[in-house]
Amino acid sequence: MARTEISEYGEFGLIKHLTKDLKHVQPSTKKGVGDDCAVMDFGGESKVLMTTDMLLEGIHFNLEYVPLKHLGYKAAVVNLSDIYAMNGTPTQMTVSLGISKRFSVEDLEALYSGIRLACERYGVDLVGGDTCSSMTGLTISITCLGTAKEDEIVYRNGAKENDLICVTGNLGTAYMGLQLLERERIANSAKPDFEGKEYLLERQLKPEARRDIIARLREAGIKPTAMMDVSDGLSSELKHICSQSNVGCAVYEDKLPIDYQAAALAEEMNLNIVTCALNGGEDYELLFTCDIKDYEKLVPIEDVYLIGHITKPEYGCQLVGRNGEELPLQAQGWKAF
Amino acid sequence: MARTEISEYGEFGLIKHLTKDLKHVQPSTKKGVGDDCAVMDFGGESKVLMTTDMLLEGIHFNLEYVPLKHLGYKAAVVNLSDIYAMNGTPTQMTVSLGISKRFSVEDLEALYSGIRLACERYGVDLVGGDTCSSMTGLTISITCLGTAKEDEIVYRNGAKENDLICVTGNLGTAYMGLQLLERERIANSAKPDFEGKEYLLERQLKPEARRDIIARLREAGIKPTAMMDVSDGLSSELKHICSQSNVGCAVYEDKLPIDYQAAALAEEMNLNIVTCALNGGEDYELLFTCDIKDYEKLVPIEDVYLIGHITKPEYGCQLVGRNGEELPLQAQGWKAF
Repeated sequence: MARTEISEYGEFGLIKHLTKDLKHVQPSTKKGVGDDCAVMDFGGESKVLMTTDMLLEGIHFNLEYVPLKHLGYKAAVVNLSDIYAMNGTPTQMTVSLGISKRFSVEDLEALYSGIRLACERYGVDLVGGDTCSSMTGLTISITCLGTAKEDEIVYRNGAKENDLICVTGNLGTAYMGLQLLERERIANSAKPDFEGKEYLLERQLKPEARRDIIARLREAGIKPTAMMDVSDGLSSELKHICSQSNVGCAVYEDKLPIDYQAAALAEEMNLNIVTCALNGGEDYELLFTCDIKDYEKLVPIEDVYLIGHITKPEYGCQLVGRNGEELPLQAQGWKAF
Repeated sequence: MARTEISEYGEFGLIKHLTKDLKHVQPSTKKGVGDDCAVMDFGGESKVLMTTDMLLEGIHFNLEYVPLKHLGYKAAVVNLSDIYAMNGTPTQMTVSLGISKRFSVEDLEALYSGIRLACERYGVDLVGGDTCSSMTGLTISITCLGTAKEDEIVYRNGAKENDLICVTGNLGTAYMGLQLLERERIANSAKPDFEGKEYLLERQLKPEARRDIIARLREAGIKPTAMMDVSDGLSSELKHICSQSNVGCAVYEDKLPIDYQAAALAEEMNLNIVTCALNGGEDYELLFTCDIKDYEKLVPIEDVYLIGHITKPEYGCQLVGRNGEELPLQAQGWKAF
C-alpha cells in the first residue's frame, strides 16, 4: 500500500486534504473549518463561536523550564485568543488532560490553578472536560466557546484592496523568549542569566489574549475587515488572510513592531530579528485589516501598529525592505514533522 | 514538597478535587462539570450541550488490532453518545489529533474516513479541530455540541424513589470483545479465531450511539427522570445517578441483559459474565430511570430492559442475586493509574 509522508503536505496542506469536501447538514452551522473559530447559529441573538487547541509535551512545551501553572494559563489563553480573533467574547471552556504517573496531584493542582486563573481573568466558565491516564507525556486539549453578534463577527476573508494592515503589541518576542530558555537550558548553569530579559520570558511563558484591543476597536467604532491571531508567525497569518480574501499585501520591514529586549538578544545570539518577527510564532497578538477611512480613528489607539496595506492579488505577499526592495513573504509555520 | 499520587484519588475523585469550588460567571452557563454534557443557554429556543473525550494510544486503544477507520468511528460515537445521554441531538464536532511520524497520510485518511462516516450517519457537522505532531503515540480529542429544548434535557440527578431502572441493548459485550482481541493478540496466531464471535468484535471496535432509543422514548411519550450512557460500566454509572439524585437502587442479577456470545466466551475464558456486565465498560448503551406510571408505555419498546428500581438512599446500591441475596454494587471504573 502506498505510504505518503505527512511532511509532504505540511500542517495546512494536511488539514486541507483531510477536511476537503466536508459537507454540512446542520442548519445551525454557519462556518466550519478554515477560520480561527467555527460559527454556529442556535437561534439566539448572538452566534456561537467554537475553537480547539491541543498542546503536547515535547512539541509545544518543555517541562524542564515551563512551570505547570504558566502552562495551564497559556493553554487557556491560546484558545481565548482565537475567540477574540473573530471579534467575539469567550464564555465557556472544556479541558481534557492526558497525564502519566509521573505527575502528582500537586502538579495537576498547579496546572489547573493556571487554567482557572485565566478563566477568572477573562470571565470564562470551566464547564467540563476529560481526565485520563497517558503512557507518556502530558497532553492538554482545550475547547472554547464564545459569542458574537452576527454583524460583529470578523472572518479572515474580508480584506480588500487598499485596506490598512495592523498588528498589535510586538512580534517575535515570544520566539526570542523561547530561544533564551533553550540557551540557558543547554548551558545548564545553576543560575540562568535572565536579567533584563524578563519581558521575553513573560511573552513566552505567560502570553495574554488581546481582549483590550477588541474593546478599544469597538469603542473607536472600528470593525476590522479581516482578522486572526498571530500564533504561527506573521508571514503565515498574512498569507492566510490574503489567500482567503483573494488579495495581496505589502508589509514594510521598518514598520514591524519589535521589542528592544528581543532585538538586543537577537543581536547577541546572531539571529535576524526581522526573520524572528515574521516567522517566530506564539505572539498571540492580533493581525487585522481595516478600511482606510478608519485611519484617523485607528491612529490614537494604543499598541496598534500600521505595518502595510492590502493590494491586488497579482502583487502577491511582499515584504518591502528598508531600501524599498521587495521580497516575497515565506510562510514557514509548522514544520514539526 | 508533598507529593500525592494520583492513584490515591482515582479518576472521579481527582476530577472532583480539581474542579471543586468552580464558580460560573457567564449567565449562559446552565450546567457545568458533573453530567454527560455541560448545558448552555445562548438565547435560542434550544439549549446547547457540550461534551469532550480524549483517547490516547496504549490506554484507550491498541493499534495492533484496532483498524484506524474503526477507531475514528468509535472516537466520534463516544462523544455522540454523551449528547444522546442528555436526551439531546448532536450537531457539530471538532477533532484534534496528535500524530507522530509513524503515521502516513493514508493512515490519517483512514482515521478521518471513520470520523466522517460517523458524522454522516448521525447527521453531525465536522466544523474544526487542530492537527499537530506528537513525540509518541496517537492522541484524539473530540468535542461535540448538541441541542435540546430545556424541558427535554435529562440530567443524572432526577431519579426518585420507585422509579424504574432501564438499560438498553446488552452489557459487558464490548468488554468481552476486548478480551477476545487481547487473547488472540497474545496467542499471536496467523489466523485469529473469531468465528461465531463477530458480534463481540463489532461491539468493541465499532459501537453505536443509541439515537434509536432516544427517538423511541420520545415517540412513546416517555421522558426519563435521569439518564447517562454506560461508558465506565453499569455499577459505576448507577452509583453516579444514585449519588447525584440522592437515592439508592436495587438491580436484579437475572434481569441484566447479556448477549449469548459474550456469555459463551466468558465461560470459555473462565470469567464471571455478571461481573463483566457490571464493570466492563465501553458498552455505550443508555442507562435511565423513569416514572413507574410509564411502565405500560415502556414495555413494548424494543431493546429496552427493566433491571431494577430506585429506592430510598438508606438502602444503598444493591445487586440482588438469583437467590435473593443482596450485594453492594462496587464501582470499579477507571483504574489506569
